[in-house]
Amino acid sequence: MKSIKPIQKVVDSFESLPGIGPKTAARLAYYLLHIPQERLERFGQGLARLKKDTKNCKVCFNVGEGSLCPVCEDGLRDKTMVCVVEAPLDLLAFEKADGYSGVYHVLGGAINPLAGIGPEELRIGELLERVKKGRITELILATNPTMEGEATAMYISHRVREGKLDKKGLKITRIGRGLPTGADVEYADGQTLNRALEGRREV
Amino acid sequence: MKSIKPIQKVVDSFESLPGIGPKTAARLAYYLLHIPQERLERFGQGLARLKKDTKNCKVCFNVGEGSLCPVCEDGLRDKTMVCVVEAPLDLLAFEKADGYSGVYHVLGGAINPLAGIGPEELRIGELLERVKKGRITELILATNPTMEGEATAMYISHRVREGKLDKKGLKITRIGRGLPTGADVEYADGQTLNRALEGRREV
Repeated sequence: MKSIKPIQKVVDSFESLPGIGPKTAARLAYYLLHIPQERLERFGQGLARLKKDTKNCKVCFNVGEGSLCPVCEDGLRDKTMVCVVEAPLDLLAFEKADGYSGVYHVLGGAINPLAGIGPEELRIGELLERVKKGRITELILATNPTMEGEATAMYISHRVREGKLDKKGLKITRIGRGLPTGADVEYADGQTLNRALEGRREV
Repeated sequence: MKSIKPIQKVVDSFESLPGIGPKTAARLAYYLLHIPQERLERFGQGLARLKKDTKNCKVCFNVGEGSLCPVCEDGLRDKTMVCVVEAPLDLLAFEKADGYSGVYHVLGGAINPLAGIGPEELRIGELLERVKKGRITELILATNPTMEGEATAMYISHRVREGKLDKKGLKITRIGRGLPTGADVEYADGQTLNRALEGRREV
C-alpha cells in the first residue's frame, strides 16, 4: 500500500520526537483521527505558537512568557540563593518538589567535550556576572550527578574561586548525594553507597 | 512557580494522547522548544489538516485521501479475497508484513457489550452488502484473538451463513492461531498452546 500523505506527515513529526518510535508514532497519528477537529487545531496551534509565545528569562534563562520567568518575577523568592541547574526541566523538578524558595540559574546543558560543548556554550559567563553583582550568598550546584554534570559543577566553583568572587562570604554547595528515597541498600551501586557514606549526617 | 501557559498548552495536548504520561509530555514540550520554528509549524499544520485531508474509503473504510483507499485503488490487488480487520492499524500491520494481495474491510472496532459497542456500531452491515454483491470468494476474519475479536468473528460468520450469502462457494476463514515467531513453548500460556495443537499442520 502506498502511504497516505496527511497521515505520514503526522507520523514523521511524532517519530522525530525523542523516545517515540515508528510504531508509537503510527498509533498516535491514527488515534488523532478520532478526536474532534477543534482539539486537533488547538494542539496544532499550541505547537506553532510554542516558541513565539515563550522567552528565556533575562536573569536566569529559565523559560517564561515575559522578560522575567515566573520564578524571578516572584517577589517572595529569596534572591540571595541561586540553584544552578542544567535545563528548565531540572528547575521544574525542584519546583514540583516544593522545598526550595530561592531562585535558579539555567546553564543550558553541561560541559561535554565529546559533544563539542565547552563552558562558552553554557550560560556560565552570565552566572559569574550574577555572582559578581554580589547579592548572592549561596550558590547551589545542582547539575546532574553524571560525569558531565560533575565536571560542570567543578568548573563553576573553580571559576568563582579563581575570580575571587566568593570573598564576600559566598557559600558554594553541591546537592547531596546518596540513596534516593525508596531505594534498596542491597541493590545500590558502589559509588552511590560510597557517596552516601561520605554524605552521612548525625541523627 | 506558576505554569507557563504556552508550554502548559502543549503539555496538556501531549498528555491527552494514549500512553503519554505527564513526565513524557513535559519532556516532549521542552524538547520542542529547541527545534526550528519551521518544523514546529509543519507539525502543527499536519495535525490541523490530518482529518480534513483524509477520508474513509467508501468500499473498505480504511483511511485514504480520496474516495478509495490506496489498497482498493490498486488494480493489482485480488478483489475476491477480503481480510476483515478491526482497525486501520491492523490493516497497516498486514501491509507491512507484505504477504497478502487481497483487499480489506475495516470494521472500526469489535463487538464489546460492556463498552456499548454492538454490531450496529461496526461496519458489519456494509461488509454483508459487499458479500452479497457476490464477487468475493474468501472472507478472512482477522479480528484480534481477544474475547471481543473472537465474538465479532463468530458474529460475522453467523450472519453470513444465516443470510445464505455463502452459497456461491464463499469460504470463511479465521486467521491462524498458535505460537508467534520467536516465542518459547515453555513460556506460552495454555490457551495459546492448545490453539497451536489444534492448528497443527503436516510437514
